[in-house]
Amino acid sequence: MPFSLYEITVPVFIHGLKTLSHLLDVGTEQVKFDGESKLITSRLVEDQGDLVFQVQKASDAARLLVVRLVKFDGESKLITSRLVEDQGDLVFQVQKASDAARLLVVRLGKVESATFANDEATFEQLHARISETIKFLESVDPKQIDQAESDIIEWNGQKLIGSAYAVQFAIPNFYFHLTTAYSILRKDGVQIGKADFLGKKN
Amino acid sequence: MPFSLYEITVPVFIHGLKTLSHLLDVGTEQVKFDGESKLITSRLVEDQGDLVFQVQKASDAARLLVVRLVKFDGESKLITSRLVEDQGDLVFQVQKASDAARLLVVRLGKVESATFANDEATFEQLHARISETIKFLESVDPKQIDQAESDIIEWNGQKLIGSAYAVQFAIPNFYFHLTTAYSILRKDGVQIGKADFLGKKN
Repeated sequence: MPFSLYEITVPVFIHGLKTLSHLLDVGTEQVKFDGESKLITSRLVEDQGDLVFQVQKASDAARLLVVRLVKFDGESKLITSRLVEDQGDLVFQVQKASDAARLLVVRLGKVESATFANDEATFEQLHARISETIKFLESVDPKQIDQAESDIIEWNGQKLIGSAYAVQFAIPNFYFHLTTAYSILRKDGVQIGKADFLGKKN
Repeated sequence: MPFSLYEITVPVFIHGLKTLSHLLDVGTEQVKFDGESKLITSRLVEDQGDLVFQVQKASDAARLLVVRLVKFDGESKLITSRLVEDQGDLVFQVQKASDAARLLVVRLGKVESATFANDEATFEQLHARISETIKFLESVDPKQIDQAESDIIEWNGQKLIGSAYAVQFAIPNFYFHLTTAYSILRKDGVQIGKADFLGKKN
């Protein structure tokens, strides 16, 4: 059974976006872990007796606050990290991956989508962006996509028929931004590998 | 008309490999240009009269030799460049992109292919690797690929049916290495952009 236009795009994008969400999760976990490790090795005193124990108890609240600050600081750095000065940062790569998927459905399926303000500044907001995009992709009727195979799609001064738009533009463009997001996280020491990139197969 | 398994893989890989060859070309041109620019601004004397003119003439042969050495040095650095210490270099990324394409044809099409020694050390050898791979991809009969849709493909302890092998493994894997090769070149200052990555559309 050959593949429909829908099959080679929408489910692939949904899978890729879920993977992206997973990669971001590993990133925030790592930031949190690194931040806490630094605190543990550099700020906590040894347990030496009752008095110290009391001090530690009192400092738990302060420690939690510092953990949060360290985490916030680490996340801010990671989210605006990039491979090269004049290339988009992690936020940009997530936005573009989301758009590559979303705009295929908009342009081929001729359906409206919520537009995004592209102002995400936290991992939480990136996750929300990804979830919204997945929800939108899941809502489209496969027939809407399949019937656009020979339609002429015009965008940003470019023109391709529907099937070429998918294979020559949307799919490579989607993987480009997914891989670049991966590389940014990887470069910044997040412990991810090829298996995380490919995600769960079924 | 829906897509065959062949259509969403082999021509896509051929297109991507040609793109990769183009990216490498821009890289070597840039290395050559950068090397020559450095020579021109740092080593050549100003044209101040006859004697100097004679000196310049005499130095042309030496200059050409230095240009070649600079080019060789620049290419050696670029070809072993990587994004992160524990990730593969540019040579590795080209080898893996070639293998992602080649092994789909081998595993789905059940055809033998020349194996590579994975010992490429120059841009010329990388280009040869890419050309060989393209030639192999072009030689396969589309029917050989299409009939493997439901076949169980086993490799490196993994197992997927043919269509899933293409969509969930070979295609993302191919784009992963293509994008990483792009990112390495981009990081090292090679003047390439998204249009180069997507290549010529038709």
